[in-house]
Amino acid sequence: MKKIVIHTQSSDQKGIISKYTNDLSSTDINILTLEQHVEPDDKLFFMRIEAEILNKDMSHESLNSILANTDKEFNAKSRIFDSNEQKNMAILVTKESLPLYDILIKNQTNEINSNIKVIISNHETLKDVANQFKIDFCHIDIGNNKVKGNEELLKILNMHSIDLVVLARYMQIIPNDIVNIFKEKMINIHHGFLPAFKGDRPYHKAWKRGVKIIGATAHYVTNELDEGPIITQDVVPVNHHHSISELINAGRNLERNVLVSAIKAHLEHRVMIHKKRTIIFNK
Amino acid sequence: MKKIVIHTQSSDQKGIISKYTNDLSSTDINILTLEQHVEPDDKLFFMRIEAEILNKDMSHESLNSILANTDKEFNAKSRIFDSNEQKNMAILVTKESLPLYDILIKNQTNEINSNIKVIISNHETLKDVANQFKIDFCHIDIGNNKVKGNEELLKILNMHSIDLVVLARYMQIIPNDIVNIFKEKMINIHHGFLPAFKGDRPYHKAWKRGVKIIGATAHYVTNELDEGPIITQDVVPVNHHHSISELINAGRNLERNVLVSAIKAHLEHRVMIHKKRTIIFNK
Amino acid sequence: MKKIVIHTQSSDQKGIISKYTNDLSSTDINILTLEQHVEPDDKLFFMRIEAEILNKDMSHESLNSILANTDKEFNAKSRIFDSNEQKNMAILVTKESLPLYDILIKNQTNEINSNIKVIISNHETLKDVANQFKIDFCHIDIGNNKVKGNEELLKILNMHSIDLVVLARYMQIIPNDIVNIFKEKMINIHHGFLPAFKGDRPYHKAWKRGVKIIGATAHYVTNELDEGPIITQDVVPVNHHHSISELINAGRNLERNVLVSAIKAHLEHRVMIHKKRTIIFNK
Amino acid sequence: MKKIVIHTQSSDQKGIISKYTNDLSSTDINILTLEQHVEPDDKLFFMRIEAEILNKDMSHESLNSILANTDKEFNAKSRIFDSNEQKNMAILVTKESLPLYDILIKNQTNEINSNIKVIISNHETLKDVANQFKIDFCHIDIGNNKVKGNEELLKILNMHSIDLVVLARYMQIIPNDIVNIFKEKMINIHHGFLPAFKGDRPYHKAWKRGVKIIGATAHYVTNELDEGPIITQDVVPVNHHHSISELINAGRNLERNVLVSAIKAHLEHRVMIHKKRTIIFNK
Repeated sequence: MKKIVIHTQSSDQKGIISKYTNDLSSTDINILTLEQHVEPDDKLFFMRIEAEILNKDMSHESLNSILANTDKEFNAKSRIFDSNEQKNMAILVTKESLPLYDILIKNQTNEINSNIKVIISNHETLKDVANQFKIDFCHIDIGNNKVKGNEELLKILNMHSIDLVVLARYMQIIPNDIVNIFKEKMINIHHGFLPAFKGDRPYHKAWKRGVKIIGATAHYVTNELDEGPIITQDVVPVNHHHSISELINAGRNLERNVLVSAIKAHLEHRVMIHKKRTIIFNK
Repeated sequence: MKKIVIHTQSSDQKGIISKYTNDLSSTDINILTLEQHVEPDDKLFFMRIEAEILNKDMSHESLNSILANTDKEFNAKSRIFDSNEQKNMAILVTKESLPLYDILIKNQTNEINSNIKVIISNHETLKDVANQFKIDFCHIDIGNNKVKGNEELLKILNMHSIDLVVLARYMQIIPNDIVNIFKEKMINIHHGFLPAFKGDRPYHKAWKRGVKIIGATAHYVTNELDEGPIITQDVVPVNHHHSISELINAGRNLERNVLVSAIKAHLEHRVMIHKKRTIIFNK
Repeated sequence: MKKIVIHTQSSDQKGIISKYTNDLSSTDINILTLEQHVEPDDKLFFMRIEAEILNKDMSHESLNSILANTDKEFNAKSRIFDSNEQKNMAILVTKESLPLYDILIKNQTNEINSNIKVIISNHETLKDVANQFKIDFCHIDIGNNKVKGNEELLKILNMHSIDLVVLARYMQIIPNDIVNIFKEKMINIHHGFLPAFKGDRPYHKAWKRGVKIIGATAHYVTNELDEGPIITQDVVPVNHHHSISELINAGRNLERNVLVSAIKAHLEHRVMIHKKRTIIFNK
Repeated sequence: MKKIVIHTQSSDQKGIISKYTNDLSSTDINILTLEQHVEPDDKLFFMRIEAEILNKDMSHESLNSILANTDKEFNAKSRIFDSNEQKNMAILVTKESLPLYDILIKNQTNEINSNIKVIISNHETLKDVANQFKIDFCHIDIGNNKVKGNEELLKILNMHSIDLVVLARYMQIIPNDIVNIFKEKMINIHHGFLPAFKGDRPYHKAWKRGVKIIGATAHYVTNELDEGPIITQDVVPVNHHHSISELINAGRNLERNVLVSAIKAHLEHRVMIHKKRTIIFNK
């Protein structure tokens, strides 16, 4: 049986849930879960429906046209996703192995459902990890020539028809033109509890400031540094005993968990975005 | 505008969300939030709708009869709650002041919306706290005569038409007949991370066992000791430095937070029960 | 038996623990706990000893002179605190009742060991709470005349020989001259996870930024706004369902817990300060 | 410079810290950290000292004999550990890959400092993971013959002079004779929040009981099932949305973190045991 996810966004209006659910049940589509949310500032309505198509003759086009009619009525915007379709992922890394390992392991065990096409790095350090998991590894020469390196990066991403770019502790700024191409399709892990300690060396800053809790933040990349919509965050308590390198160790476990859980939320179509905020549906 | 909450429970069926939401929108009732959940073991469907009645001539009876028809069609059971109706609460305590204080303070600031009718205790210790907040205090003489004391307790609860009994560290077993009268209307705070350390002196047991985390659990009271459906739980890390009395101090803050948040969930009609499990809706 | 706490601070040197512990044991003082820490940036040594004086003829002066000799030898600085001495506390508030209630309740139950002399406010809102606990309440007229209001504030603090000033959601900036007088003796609770969301309306900023975790921070007040050494922090996960007012509610429980635990650490002489960092000893 | 760790255990006595620290400083040994703890039930004193030997002619024997004298005086027991000595580790697994991966990765990055000699399993499933990291893999045939399989297990452990046995989701009971040989040298990860949900299928039990938080527990193995001294525990909140398989996924990240942090505490000689309790020193 084919499973789908539907995202609907519109201004908040009476009767909207009733109409869309009626569209589905009248065309032999069974709703598995429905979640909705209204953002209070702009009175915007967000809905996520997970459903199974009972009638196997039902085409994607006919479902599309049914929803398009209702979208028109409510001045809404619906999108349909195929739950089984595997997205093509590229992972960008520098030298830190832990988040990379975690994505690879959890893709292997199918906790993450994606097609990892390529690992790209400005260093050779993690080539062996790529080999361990038999994933293509591309080195790009950002160090000597940023412009050329980034052209190469874009070429590789295009070549593999990448749907999701994951920055798994990639220590380089992505240029605006690439960010714009992968709008809402590029996730970064920041090793700090954003918006505190933006930019580089967050653990050094955290140590100096004497915070008692450190954190990690996964967010969509936008053209403002570390200001994109936050998907997931987590924290761990620390104390004066932690040296900077112990903060780094303590943060490492956070980083990978936070990043993997953001990737899963994205791939399962559980994220909708409103300005700098994300709506994260349960399942 | 009148606000209501609707709980619907049935076996999981196609078209059920569509039908109920259509009932509402066709009678000028605006859905504010809708959440549903299917319990996988018994394929049971649970739905909570928060709505506002736009048509002020709509009576409770006519809404009831509309939903009753749909209930019949799906062999479901719906209940309608008035969001503004204040429930009558009784708080049972022994000597521990913190959870009692918290309920009283948060009722005063309207974070809890309830009508606290009476504080009942087998000791006089907390009479002053009741006086501080100008709530009736009744002493029941459980110590000398359990049977008579519990008869008195039931009389007081009936006299005040109590809708919710809160055991805020009340160190006595409630007899089965009273438990049965207040089925799903009596909440206890256990000062342990259930199901570990059931029964009395959980902090002593926790210390001896050398656990690294302690917890507190709020649950509905049933006739099996500490086995009722869990509403809320929380934990706090501890270490070898904590003596038993320091465990007790560390747990105190948990207990009150966990209890208050269970009371709020109950009063806001955000709890539905399935066997020993609770479905806790977001709002 | 008299209990004392000793703080020693010096550059890190060989033999330092041995010499101080020998001083104590040779004068019939029994060490109950000893904790030390070296700050790696400046190689500074911090030690806290909790001890009991077995010889009741031992005077404070003679102990002082023994440690002064060893201080001289190591170019160190030791301070002796009497564990049983109650400090005089003043609590400054505006309209938020919860942190105030918590300090008063926990002082009443002796979890906080202090002599609360006065509650001072720029509003009359919390006068009733002060009355409930029979503590003096002083209104200062900051609203109409900041300079005069703050003169009054200082006069009240001096009149009561205040040792510790607690800003329990006091929504006014303390002028530099008062801050300087109460250096390392004035604790503020910030309703945000510092250093994020410094200044006012942190919950509004947090909502807009879409963070998934909110926090509270207790810190010593310095002349840089919200930049003083952090004593305690805690956090709570939130999600898109939380409106700003629900963030405020969620944060309230944090604020009071974080503040009370900072007050306890301070009063139990468990805090030593190094630049913007605090060393918080276990007990 | 050679670094050592010293554990001292005795009844609580006046002058004990002073005497041992004096022993060290008088023989040119610099104390890096000192932590002590008194267990209140039996008035037992535990101390851990991390130190560096400045005099490179100082032999292990002479240090031993100095401490032995003081041990005699206080009826105490001291043990000296060489911080740089790598322990031989065996990892026992069944089919779950995540905890195994984590130990291997963190040993590779030197976060864990140990010599992993062999991975032993009653299944072939994780052979590839062993190969990825070039560690010996031994299959033991527990399924067909428990007695023979366990004899083989013991032979392998002896052959590799194993100092620490890690049960990384090894789904078999270790027989008493092997447990006795590796007393305080065998660590198990239990995928539940002990003492709740002892034995098998803790996630199934947790789902049925409707707990709102699940946990994982690393403990030393004793002859009482899941009753050994707890080293580390951690928890994660769950809700009614989590199916059993989602509980399992949520718990997986916990398990590996909790297990690795127990292994580190053990290998860094930060654990001392008192009955069912552990004293875990900071560093």
